[in-house]
Amino acid sequence: MAVDVDVLDRNVRRMAAGAADRGLVLRPHAKTHKTIEIARRQIEHGAAGLTVATVREAEIFADGGVTDLFIAYPIWPSPERARRLRALADRVALRVGVDSVESAEALARAVGSLDVLVEVDSGHHRSGVQPAEAGALIGAAERLGHRVRGVFTFPGHSYGPGLREPAASDEARALADASPHAEVRSGGSTPTAGLADLGPVNEIRPGVYVFNDAQQVELGTCAFGDVALTVAATVVSRTGNRAIVDAGSKVLGADRPAWATGFGRLPDVPDARVVALSEHHATIEFPDGTPARGDVLRVAPNHVCTTVNLVEELVVVSGGSQVDSWRVAARGANT
Amino acid sequence: MAVDVDVLDRNVRRMAAGAADRGLVLRPHAKTHKTIEIARRQIEHGAAGLTVATVREAEIFADGGVTDLFIAYPIWPSPERARRLRALADRVALRVGVDSVESAEALARAVGSLDVLVEVDSGHHRSGVQPAEAGALIGAAERLGHRVRGVFTFPGHSYGPGLREPAASDEARALADASPHAEVRSGGSTPTAGLADLGPVNEIRPGVYVFNDAQQVELGTCAFGDVALTVAATVVSRTGNRAIVDAGSKVLGADRPAWATGFGRLPDVPDARVVALSEHHATIEFPDGTPARGDVLRVAPNHVCTTVNLVEELVVVSGGSQVDSWRVAARGANT
Repeated sequence: MAVDVDVLDRNVRRMAAGAADRGLVLRPHAKTHKTIEIARRQIEHGAAGLTVATVREAEIFADGGVTDLFIAYPIWPSPERARRLRALADRVALRVGVDSVESAEALARAVGSLDVLVEVDSGHHRSGVQPAEAGALIGAAERLGHRVRGVFTFPGHSYGPGLREPAASDEARALADASPHAEVRSGGSTPTAGLADLGPVNEIRPGVYVFNDAQQVELGTCAFGDVALTVAATVVSRTGNRAIVDAGSKVLGADRPAWATGFGRLPDVPDARVVALSEHHATIEFPDGTPARGDVLRVAPNHVCTTVNLVEELVVVSGGSQVDSWRVAARGANT
Repeated sequence: MAVDVDVLDRNVRRMAAGAADRGLVLRPHAKTHKTIEIARRQIEHGAAGLTVATVREAEIFADGGVTDLFIAYPIWPSPERARRLRALADRVALRVGVDSVESAEALARAVGSLDVLVEVDSGHHRSGVQPAEAGALIGAAERLGHRVRGVFTFPGHSYGPGLREPAASDEARALADASPHAEVRSGGSTPTAGLADLGPVNEIRPGVYVFNDAQQVELGTCAFGDVALTVAATVVSRTGNRAIVDAGSKVLGADRPAWATGFGRLPDVPDARVVALSEHHATIEFPDGTPARGDVLRVAPNHVCTTVNLVEELVVVSGGSQVDSWRVAARGANT
């Protein structure tokens, strides 16, 4: 699995400049890359801190020198997790998500007073309170002794053709309805983060943009030239206009939204389509000539966040040659 | 991620006994478990050897003491992979798959004479030659100096409701048409491996049966009580009849065939449905009462082969208590 560091650095700088131009705090989601070296590059270019999904990811990035971390997840504090959260809060600037009075109470009881952001459902309908309920939860969390720094949402329903603008509108409306004057009003998936007008949003948390992937290309968020991470796959079998390569779901990941054209894309062969995927085989159709057995092709995965989690190490390339390797330090850090 | 060793041992014994009763060689696919301790249990109970998907998996199981390995994959020998194949062939009884004269030539040139099985397409339409072409490839491979031990197929099109019997018929016909008197006539996915009459098949290579999973339950191959591997997930959010738990695609895997009822099943709550999955969230609908925040639920993944690949270690339980832990030695062994 290779990362073109020149493309990656351009993606990092471009997002940082775009955030700065609009006066937005950039707090990238590190679940995408799980890699200390990439976290450092994001922070060097102006990220205020990182977003993570789990306590274990927070611990690993804290060990890697990141001092400002937001766990954008409605964590439930088991006794063991509560101890780890307390230890984290004592060594870094830590924020955690809450989406219920019950979780705010459980955190207060098991961990103590924390900096919290209230999660708001802006239309993705996963976790988060409805915007109209945010005020009551903010009040309850404050009475429990937490410092409520603001509100956050994830407009995950931006992942579909033509859905970016409506999802960004939903996000703006939800944060405005929830708490228009909160210190932190945090949103922004990779599809929405680049839009000119994000309304009341003053912090963005894109993740995928560092690498980009086939989904982002097909959503129109980026071009093939902006895809920094690809998997090298060898043609092992072929019939007619189809070739089988030795990269399957165990290295690409299996995410396949209904609107995608397949299970990934080939940046160097835009007309090719990955029509089937099993654990160690991808079936690719080539309208203009099937490659030969032994040919090596670059495959961009559909959803890079799940791809990086499948390997121990990223091969770092520049100008086609390996210049470094980075450990995926937070691989499998699910707890 | 927990494995109930009593259920696992019962699954291992049952498949071994079923193979012995029918006079079939059992060569389980180890890509499912990637774990030395489970490989040893399979061999203790009569497996002739193991099947693997990659050279790296073969190396890891050879290091773990397995002496008979079949790489059921049409490997293309890059120079580096050729060196590793040669080293493997020198220390274990090794068989490899071929599905073209080109790959047989490339192996002969780069690795030398090998024990090979010719892969036949029995209807899954991935790799493999058509049955009528097998004879020519067998002849060509023999002239290149390989020892052709037989033919193999993977009836992957057995993965669908009502498709098990027709896929087994296809498999039988394909192997009979390809080489009815070959020494090895190898087939058998977990859905088909238990059928009474497998025709000319004399070796089976099921993988999933050691753990079973939600797909096998929904296909009718096993009951919930036969599912040995589950992921413990905590309820972190809830609304109405829906709960969100903290196990997503980064621990369950994202496989979701169109015929499945969702993204996994809850063995202890058969009526529940996993209606959505993101990286760290599963959305579960409960028709009869939503669990409380903090409750811990057992989730059976849809496709356990991709699940095991996501963790470093399996927690081994018996009677509800941890009795051991096993390292997923071949995790990420894709090359």
